[in-house]
Amino acid sequence: MFSVTVTPRFGDTDALGHINNTALPGWFELARNPLFAMFPPERDFTDGTFSLIMAHTDFDFLGELVFGAEVEIRSWVSRIGTKSFTILHEAWQKGELRCRGHAVIVHYNFKTRETLPLPEDKKAALARHLRRED
Amino acid sequence: MFSVTVTPRFGDTDALGHINNTALPGWFELARNPLFAMFPPERDFTDGTFSLIMAHTDFDFLGELVFGAEVEIRSWVSRIGTKSFTILHEAWQKGELRCRGHAVIVHYNFKTRETLPLPEDKKAALARHLRRED
Amino acid sequence: MFSVTVTPRFGDTDALGHINNTALPGWFELARNPLFAMFPPERDFTDGTFSLIMAHTDFDFLGELVFGAEVEIRSWVSRIGTKSFTILHEAWQKGELRCRGHAVIVHYNFKTRETLPLPEDKKAALARHLRRED
Amino acid sequence: MFSVTVTPRFGDTDALGHINNTALPGWFELARNPLFAMFPPERDFTDGTFSLIMAHTDFDFLGELVFGAEVEIRSWVSRIGTKSFTILHEAWQKGELRCRGHAVIVHYNFKTRETLPLPEDKKAALARHLRRED
Repeated sequence: MFSVTVTPRFGDTDALGHINNTALPGWFELARNPLFAMFPPERDFTDGTFSLIMAHTDFDFLGELVFGAEVEIRSWVSRIGTKSFTILHEAWQKGELRCRGHAVIVHYNFKTRETLPLPEDKKAALARHLRRED
Repeated sequence: MFSVTVTPRFGDTDALGHINNTALPGWFELARNPLFAMFPPERDFTDGTFSLIMAHTDFDFLGELVFGAEVEIRSWVSRIGTKSFTILHEAWQKGELRCRGHAVIVHYNFKTRETLPLPEDKKAALARHLRRED
Repeated sequence: MFSVTVTPRFGDTDALGHINNTALPGWFELARNPLFAMFPPERDFTDGTFSLIMAHTDFDFLGELVFGAEVEIRSWVSRIGTKSFTILHEAWQKGELRCRGHAVIVHYNFKTRETLPLPEDKKAALARHLRRED
Repeated sequence: MFSVTVTPRFGDTDALGHINNTALPGWFELARNPLFAMFPPERDFTDGTFSLIMAHTDFDFLGELVFGAEVEIRSWVSRIGTKSFTILHEAWQKGELRCRGHAVIVHYNFKTRETLPLPEDKKAALARHLRRED
């Protein structure tokens, strides 16, 4: 598991008084920073050598998230395929699971626009965070 | 169908040079403005009478969205249940479908925290935008 | 003047029921799209040849912006210097000026990290949108 | 001084490879959470009793902020007036000051739409964070 704590900002709320659903994608993206570190580009992110592309995200909103209390984002690798893998994210606030979601990420060569097999060392690194879903 | 055109802003891009995936939830939310108009609160959105709550969103990223060209968001009602309905969103740029997603929205009383049956007149209004998915 | 119309999205509101102040920087950035077009990079924005860098922004919040009504962003060039220029932005909603701000933008070589004189043809293009402030 | 550490998320970057200027308003807003706590609403932020309104923000971009390193936001009260006060924010990354800005906040009754004198106890609380600017 990797964990990151997010402090909601006031602008994350909407007129209904709770955290707007569009805040979650950014929080889950933040939780994927360790993945960016596992697959570093050669020089920087603008040089065309970064090798991950987002294929899918989903979000189940299970309870209202509020301003004024920290949110822990817990993340696991829930699937390791030959060319892609899935991240499972959970947002916990005040001891309750409030949102759960996934990101399906594909290993990809942006220059040739081809999918790439996941190298064995990357699979092993991902497997250290594995939590299969039922 | 309801349609809205979005002009990407430069900050919607990320260091990879394309629109970041976290921009899409806001674009699809914008496309749901006609739904907010169908279910108006009594006085305003802070008075506790708004009756829609988000249960689920998902996004399939089918092609890269870029800065410098308009994006059309096409939306339909793809399912009408007894207490909830589903919106289907598509983001088109330069004649290609680049992202497709859904929002599952529940009819809800925020004060009593209970789900509510969808009234027949609301079902009829939603049905005018119906496009069932295969 | 250049003008762009923004439709607020629900997530732009905050728990006070109005548009959160942090929405304005994105709206004003959107209004600067014609400037990005005036100073195009050679190949794309990741190639190091884009030549504008933001030095300063400011925002005066003159009235509450609300969800449910369109906002017109009117923009002018209010100052043309030797190496930089200033954009004046105004956000109008329901016939009232609700926010006014500026962006000071410097002509800049990202590779050498040096400021650059504004070429005469760019100055002339900017001057077509000139509105000096008192 | 009050301090908060922000971890940039990948979507905060833009196609130029650095943090987009529109990320800063949200980061500085996050840094004002202690102010929201000093001026709590009676019941919640939707009940009309919150008493602060934003009048002005500004941002001086002094150096490029990058993805992959934490940013410390240091904040002070730089002015205490009779009905308003000013917050000074600084964003530090890798030991360098990269952005400095201000927020001018007015004590305000949203129901009567009138400005309010700052109570002495609030002035005293703000004064504990005072750092006058030259």
